[in-house]
Amino acid sequence: MSYLDKITSPTLLLDEKICRANLKMMADKAQRHRMELVPHFKTAQSRLIGSWAKEYGIKEITTSSVKMTKYLLGDGWENIHIAFPFNPREVEKLDELASSQSISVQLINTETTKHLASTLSNPVGFFIEIDAGYGRTGVDSRDYSKIQEILDIAKNTPNLNFKGFYLHPGHTYYGNIPAIYEETREALGRLKKEFKPQFPHLVTRTGDTPGCAVVEDFGDIDQLGPGNFVFFDLMQAYLGSCAKSDIAVAMAVPVVDIKKDRKEILVHGGGVHFAKDVLQNEDGSMNFGELVYLKDDGWEIPNDGSHLKKISQEHGLLKASDELLGRVKVGDLIGILPVHSCMTADCMGEYLTLDGNWVDHAEGPKN
Amino acid sequence: MSYLDKITSPTLLLDEKICRANLKMMADKAQRHRMELVPHFKTAQSRLIGSWAKEYGIKEITTSSVKMTKYLLGDGWENIHIAFPFNPREVEKLDELASSQSISVQLINTETTKHLASTLSNPVGFFIEIDAGYGRTGVDSRDYSKIQEILDIAKNTPNLNFKGFYLHPGHTYYGNIPAIYEETREALGRLKKEFKPQFPHLVTRTGDTPGCAVVEDFGDIDQLGPGNFVFFDLMQAYLGSCAKSDIAVAMAVPVVDIKKDRKEILVHGGGVHFAKDVLQNEDGSMNFGELVYLKDDGWEIPNDGSHLKKISQEHGLLKASDELLGRVKVGDLIGILPVHSCMTADCMGEYLTLDGNWVDHAEGPKN
Repeated sequence: MSYLDKITSPTLLLDEKICRANLKMMADKAQRHRMELVPHFKTAQSRLIGSWAKEYGIKEITTSSVKMTKYLLGDGWENIHIAFPFNPREVEKLDELASSQSISVQLINTETTKHLASTLSNPVGFFIEIDAGYGRTGVDSRDYSKIQEILDIAKNTPNLNFKGFYLHPGHTYYGNIPAIYEETREALGRLKKEFKPQFPHLVTRTGDTPGCAVVEDFGDIDQLGPGNFVFFDLMQAYLGSCAKSDIAVAMAVPVVDIKKDRKEILVHGGGVHFAKDVLQNEDGSMNFGELVYLKDDGWEIPNDGSHLKKISQEHGLLKASDELLGRVKVGDLIGILPVHSCMTADCMGEYLTLDGNWVDHAEGPKN
Repeated sequence: MSYLDKITSPTLLLDEKICRANLKMMADKAQRHRMELVPHFKTAQSRLIGSWAKEYGIKEITTSSVKMTKYLLGDGWENIHIAFPFNPREVEKLDELASSQSISVQLINTETTKHLASTLSNPVGFFIEIDAGYGRTGVDSRDYSKIQEILDIAKNTPNLNFKGFYLHPGHTYYGNIPAIYEETREALGRLKKEFKPQFPHLVTRTGDTPGCAVVEDFGDIDQLGPGNFVFFDLMQAYLGSCAKSDIAVAMAVPVVDIKKDRKEILVHGGGVHFAKDVLQNEDGSMNFGELVYLKDDGWEIPNDGSHLKKISQEHGLLKASDELLGRVKVGDLIGILPVHSCMTADCMGEYLTLDGNWVDHAEGPKN
């Protein structure tokens, strides 16, 4: 029986071979640069995929919430880093996690550092997050006095251990990658030089998928932390981080209506399945995902312009090529490559492999 | 203890008083027009909120998936209508639901009608969905031959019972509401006249929140089916369907950093909590939600321009007024009115009332 026979409603397919090739590619790249790969697991959010990652030498991972960390506990990770400016209301939950697992958090201000210092009963590591220059979060890389203030609080707190500097250059998604990485190398290199005398073991970490995919000069940065590369997606393909054939997930959606005259196909699959990230086609129209033909051993990418042009809560409307209109009928399944795989996986809460096995995700199944 | 003391991470608050007032307002409006209100429960997706709806005379509800229907089963609804072009791969699940609950589905083509006719072992009602003119789904209102074909299949099938015509004018969100409702009245009135001789008990239903909120002439339409009005949201407020004070849900988010110089506040609350629906401010900037101040008995709407200007998976960055910057500190909670409450509720999977009680949602808790 094919995995396709199991599917009655929108289902996120995972091609294990592609996913493993992506893990291996990035692990090889880190090794080539004598860096450690600490992938961000906000994309996969899966214990099984974590076990695959270990086969490629990955020993530590990153999450973006206390909750996600709790889900990934107990799998023997040497450390789990929560890469989000720590929310002081979660200090009790953190303390509990830290009683059984090596955990690090991200700090960007003295208020939260003081709160942790006065509350924790278990040891927790921390990175100071450095503002990458696009203003989402982090301390300015030249604000040594603020950095020193945070470090001084930690110095007097046995349970708060400084690990290094973390810089996420998320603006590579729309900026000039070589220029951004020049700034990243400069900022992290300078901070290392400045604070290494006080903290000889500090490490520096950076990593976003577009940058880690194409950059070959990481200077003296110690660790890479990309997340999305585990699956990739259409956004990454259009940025040049991957080929469409490197995308490891596709949504299987049932065809519910066909309008040949309008060259449109209506599927069950909308915003609650894909999330609402969107690309713009060259002609200005919207692209919420692109067609693939599902086969027993994977999917075929036609590249004929068939794409989701409109979605609502549960509906998806495809602009369909003549080939697609000729090949499918109501009740068939087609595949859609997602625009942003992290958000799509979070919506769906599980994966189905091409062997017909369900793979876990922190959110739990949608269906 | 205030409900606020329970909150450590993003939490969707529900003000029961506002929600009940919204239910009553729409039930009163339907009664005034001698119409039946059959609300779409894709917004609330909640059994408890369903029980509130019953107190205002609501006897039937609508869902947008088989899965949502399954969740709402067993609460004594006279009928549950699945307002999505039926997906033939789910016929077995439907048949099972129909063994214990009066169910109706939506049909728009002969393929699915035939499939249901040949498969169902339990009686199921159906509406024919009429294309409202914005091309998402449905049969053209003048395509009598296609409508007759569907009806002819059903006529010979004791388990497939025609109930009437359903038209969802979703383009009221960006079109001229009076003109759209003139077309809606005309189309449904004409179809009723045409098919009533064959089906004397057929009913017509329409309903989207912007239209149902402001239109006062529904012609001979029998039923109203809006969904979003149960909570409303910022999109509806800006469309003029409600006041901001009618919005029944707000996300409580923890403040994790404050940048006074940039007039920005960073909160834990991003795309996985709010979804990514967005409004555009008058100056062209983005608005992913607006600030409210949380109090023990509800929230206060400052209307001072403080809003979420940027979100990523877990981060939310607010443009903050001087008042906001003066009032909050790291670790505090602030409230955010959502842009699109249906999607936000679906992301969060539960609600917290101002009495500190958790309210169920079909998706189940996020935290």
